[in-house]
Amino acid sequence: MTETIAEIVAGHRAGLMTPRETVARSYARIRAHNDPAIFISLRDEADAVAEAEGLAAKDTATLPLYGVPVAIKDNIDVAGLPTTAACPAFAYTPARDSTAVARLRAAGAIIIGKTNLDQFATGLVGVRSPYGIPKNPVHGDLVPGGSSSGSAVAVSAGLVPLSLGTDTAGSGRVPAMLNNIVGLKPSLGMISTSGLVPACRTLDCISVFALTVDDAATALSVVAAPDPLDPFSRDRPLAAVTAFPTGVKLGIPRPGQLIFFGDKAAEAAYGAAAARFVKLGAELVEFDLEPFYETARLLYEGPWVAERYLVIRDLLASDPDAIHPVTREITIGGARGTAADTFAALYRLQALRKVAERTFAAVDALLLPTAPTAYTTAEVLADPILLNSRLGTYTNFVNLLDLCGLAVPAAMRSDGIPFGITLLAPAGRDAALASLGRAFHADTALPLGAKSIPQPPLAAPSASLHGDEIAIVVVGAHLSGMALNHELTSLGGRLLEATATAPDYKLYALSTTPPKPGMLRIEPGQGTTMAVELWALSAASFGKFVNLIPPPLSIGTIRLADGRNAKGFLVEPAALDGARDISEFGGWRAYMAQKS
Amino acid sequence: MTETIAEIVAGHRAGLMTPRETVARSYARIRAHNDPAIFISLRDEADAVAEAEGLAAKDTATLPLYGVPVAIKDNIDVAGLPTTAACPAFAYTPARDSTAVARLRAAGAIIIGKTNLDQFATGLVGVRSPYGIPKNPVHGDLVPGGSSSGSAVAVSAGLVPLSLGTDTAGSGRVPAMLNNIVGLKPSLGMISTSGLVPACRTLDCISVFALTVDDAATALSVVAAPDPLDPFSRDRPLAAVTAFPTGVKLGIPRPGQLIFFGDKAAEAAYGAAAARFVKLGAELVEFDLEPFYETARLLYEGPWVAERYLVIRDLLASDPDAIHPVTREITIGGARGTAADTFAALYRLQALRKVAERTFAAVDALLLPTAPTAYTTAEVLADPILLNSRLGTYTNFVNLLDLCGLAVPAAMRSDGIPFGITLLAPAGRDAALASLGRAFHADTALPLGAKSIPQPPLAAPSASLHGDEIAIVVVGAHLSGMALNHELTSLGGRLLEATATAPDYKLYALSTTPPKPGMLRIEPGQGTTMAVELWALSAASFGKFVNLIPPPLSIGTIRLADGRNAKGFLVEPAALDGARDISEFGGWRAYMAQKS
Repeated sequence: MTETIAEIVAGHRAGLMTPRETVARSYARIRAHNDPAIFISLRDEADAVAEAEGLAAKDTATLPLYGVPVAIKDNIDVAGLPTTAACPAFAYTPARDSTAVARLRAAGAIIIGKTNLDQFATGLVGVRSPYGIPKNPVHGDLVPGGSSSGSAVAVSAGLVPLSLGTDTAGSGRVPAMLNNIVGLKPSLGMISTSGLVPACRTLDCISVFALTVDDAATALSVVAAPDPLDPFSRDRPLAAVTAFPTGVKLGIPRPGQLIFFGDKAAEAAYGAAAARFVKLGAELVEFDLEPFYETARLLYEGPWVAERYLVIRDLLASDPDAIHPVTREITIGGARGTAADTFAALYRLQALRKVAERTFAAVDALLLPTAPTAYTTAEVLADPILLNSRLGTYTNFVNLLDLCGLAVPAAMRSDGIPFGITLLAPAGRDAALASLGRAFHADTALPLGAKSIPQPPLAAPSASLHGDEIAIVVVGAHLSGMALNHELTSLGGRLLEATATAPDYKLYALSTTPPKPGMLRIEPGQGTTMAVELWALSAASFGKFVNLIPPPLSIGTIRLADGRNAKGFLVEPAALDGARDISEFGGWRAYMAQKS
Repeated sequence: MTETIAEIVAGHRAGLMTPRETVARSYARIRAHNDPAIFISLRDEADAVAEAEGLAAKDTATLPLYGVPVAIKDNIDVAGLPTTAACPAFAYTPARDSTAVARLRAAGAIIIGKTNLDQFATGLVGVRSPYGIPKNPVHGDLVPGGSSSGSAVAVSAGLVPLSLGTDTAGSGRVPAMLNNIVGLKPSLGMISTSGLVPACRTLDCISVFALTVDDAATALSVVAAPDPLDPFSRDRPLAAVTAFPTGVKLGIPRPGQLIFFGDKAAEAAYGAAAARFVKLGAELVEFDLEPFYETARLLYEGPWVAERYLVIRDLLASDPDAIHPVTREITIGGARGTAADTFAALYRLQALRKVAERTFAAVDALLLPTAPTAYTTAEVLADPILLNSRLGTYTNFVNLLDLCGLAVPAAMRSDGIPFGITLLAPAGRDAALASLGRAFHADTALPLGAKSIPQPPLAAPSASLHGDEIAIVVVGAHLSGMALNHELTSLGGRLLEATATAPDYKLYALSTTPPKPGMLRIEPGQGTTMAVELWALSAASFGKFVNLIPPPLSIGTIRLADGRNAKGFLVEPAALDGARDISEFGGWRAYMAQKS
């Protein structure tokens, strides 16, 4: 089986299949699946295949998404394809990719098409679109979930192994549960929103759908980067994903606080998921969910709807009938609030954030249902606003509180309805959630998506670290067998792997004794990939090691070819006057070999 | 002369004068100065004197403001005195001190009274109050500046050496310049706003007026602390104030961007101040001031006026005539904005914050005039809104961009009008600004305030650090002459001073070899002050030293008796089961002495 990103990239690298075949397979599956409501626009197949073939000219070993077909929610710009936000009257065709899509392409992904959504990303159901309702491939009566309906269904149905959604109030998590896939909602600002049609600009983030947590984390590590084009962008590289940590504390709501709207099967599945985490080694700690509920109420009862109103204010004035009636009814409410109301809500939110801070002082993450229950399309069409809002019970507060979230499948109920849990933590802890979620998902042994794909064995986290170890990228005289390698080994350092940097660097030969190189980061993709080694040191050894490093070398952050980031050696540019540029050798070992 | 806080506290400690005498001197000066517009309410003198006498029962060596008379702006609660915000109809008498006032009292300060202000802290002029216009003691024709008019005048006139103001848009800086004193506007959240009548809650901060930068920094270090009662509170202890740093880069606006409204003397004084910084060793770097001006326009043309409106909405409805007509006219505008306007302004602000971030990547601080010119009371009364807004040219943008600021006297012009400069930096760099400002102020040799008080010699910064040194508080076996002191000396450690902690700690004897104590922080003021030593280590030695420390000891942050914070030894409470509480000895050396 080659269904996951990890399998597809490995297959391409090993020559077992070609990116052209993988892309063609996606198109064939799309035709066979034959649900015209999933994609709003499909890229010309010949064009996509040509791009896949063109990858061969690149250094494919450095492409973390080498030949991976990707679907993009149709509120995110892809150059040359219309961006509709599921509203034909709003559509435009961007000349350039959104930053997130550009990063996917640079990592070797092949864009296949643009997916359906609840219009203007307003909704959690997937039924509010003039482009139809994507059929839920896990259970055909259920709504697909939204607003990222097409992106979630495309992954669940095996059409693509990866898609981008967006998530303002749960649009990247609720559909993940309803489609039995992983939905990763990163920390705000981690993925640039440049080229995204806003919903609530202060709360929007681009999210990732994949079959496994590791696939989602790989994609996030590729897409996450600061972006000067997005004022809300933050520099938050993904930390290392690890084995299930010991002593982890998970927050579960106080007795009686969880709401399932009478869905006993969902309630039982949540209890079983909590028990599974205990079995894996977690400790459950009760916390008060009420302030989180209050925050959720702020989102739709408070001023933030005005952000949605700002996006379509002109269209509401010029052509109100072009807007879906439910979307119009919700959004028009955003015209009413006052500045004073807004500040009053911001004050209350600030107080609630402090409460959340205190909650997270006692737990590493919250464990909640992704949604309290599931509804059929018929039910939602009959009661479109109330049932939609119920689906957001455990998602609406998350971005207001600046949390990151990971929605993971937890169970397939006896009635054939998927149930999922979401892990939540303060912004910046995305990798920690992935470390918990991947072990949990593997332990469920659930088939992936709608196609009964068995889970591949859980890979050892690459660059696996133990205890309080810290990884460090070494570039020159500290490499195995070279002049200063003893500094690492004498501190108890362990070689994790030989690997390569992203193609973002230049290498210089310094006139030091012993000879050392200096690695300088330049524009992303404008440099060379360098052969390096990743070593593990205990925190204490790392501190001592850093203290030993003389100028002009320093320890900064190095981006690896597969998108991971780690601490490692950089050179101060002031020392490079007259130093020889040896980038063409692709590493210090190759340079030293030709010299001797 | 005993006019500064440093001199007064030293005088009290040395027995050269008593807190009772100092407090009585304040009251005598207030009577002699005879300006009824400075204080809105004065505390009963006998009450204040009794509190001053009561200090003798405390451990006065640990009180950083031992017997210092303080005036409080009348929008900050002092238990038992009315809080008016300069609006009699709004007044109430709080039962408890604001957090900031409580911290001053706990540090040995004696509250003298509540000072006049532009009503509801709306204004930079000091003329918008039904309690009269405090006369500017430096130049009687000039406005006193506002909104913290009474607090600034009280310090300038020598009535008290310290006062609290507030600063939303410049109220803690403009009056400092007009009164030839220091105005320190800390980073947002550093001083709790619990017990403060809001102006714009998202932008408000309490500020400090003093005669010298060191006095202001001492007061800030006492008052700054996280506070669960204030949702906008942040944990930002003041770092160490140092000697003038080498290689510092100061931003000055591009040619033609500065505005002085034709005031050539102010323009010349600014140029001279910049030249003085160059003489002190700073490098001047041009930056683009326009985005900062745009931010300033957002403040009064944008939605933030709605925050002021929220504060007095009820009073505007029930008794509009109770509000000063200018204040009413400005504030009522806050009723008009919409939620959509507000979010649009927040988006623009976010983009401007990113521009400011890039500016501060190239400079350590901005150097600007505190105000572009000075106006007489007659001028301001004739044109109350326009001239007020001009005074905020260089102050309005500061809190929107989350900067800290320090207003320092720069010159006494030949026309007798004081001119001042303000240093600005991103939040958290308050100590760095103080390090620059204190050296600059000393170099001007300007007399202090309105009373021609000569500047005292600039003290060596206590716990003076050089190069990349880091200070560490040692408590037990690392003290001079004790078992593990060699670990410090062998790493090149230097003893800075023997000092004492704040009374926030307990000390335990651990059963280790060699014997060591464990110091545990408990509630502020609920513990004992411990004799400790402050050592300096290079950054490298510090790293190694930290790596050497075995459990149950760790390195955290220790608060010293004078309000400074430094890294130092703490014990994990898990190790204290059965350990003897030896707090009564007041330190490890005393405990070991009785043992042997």
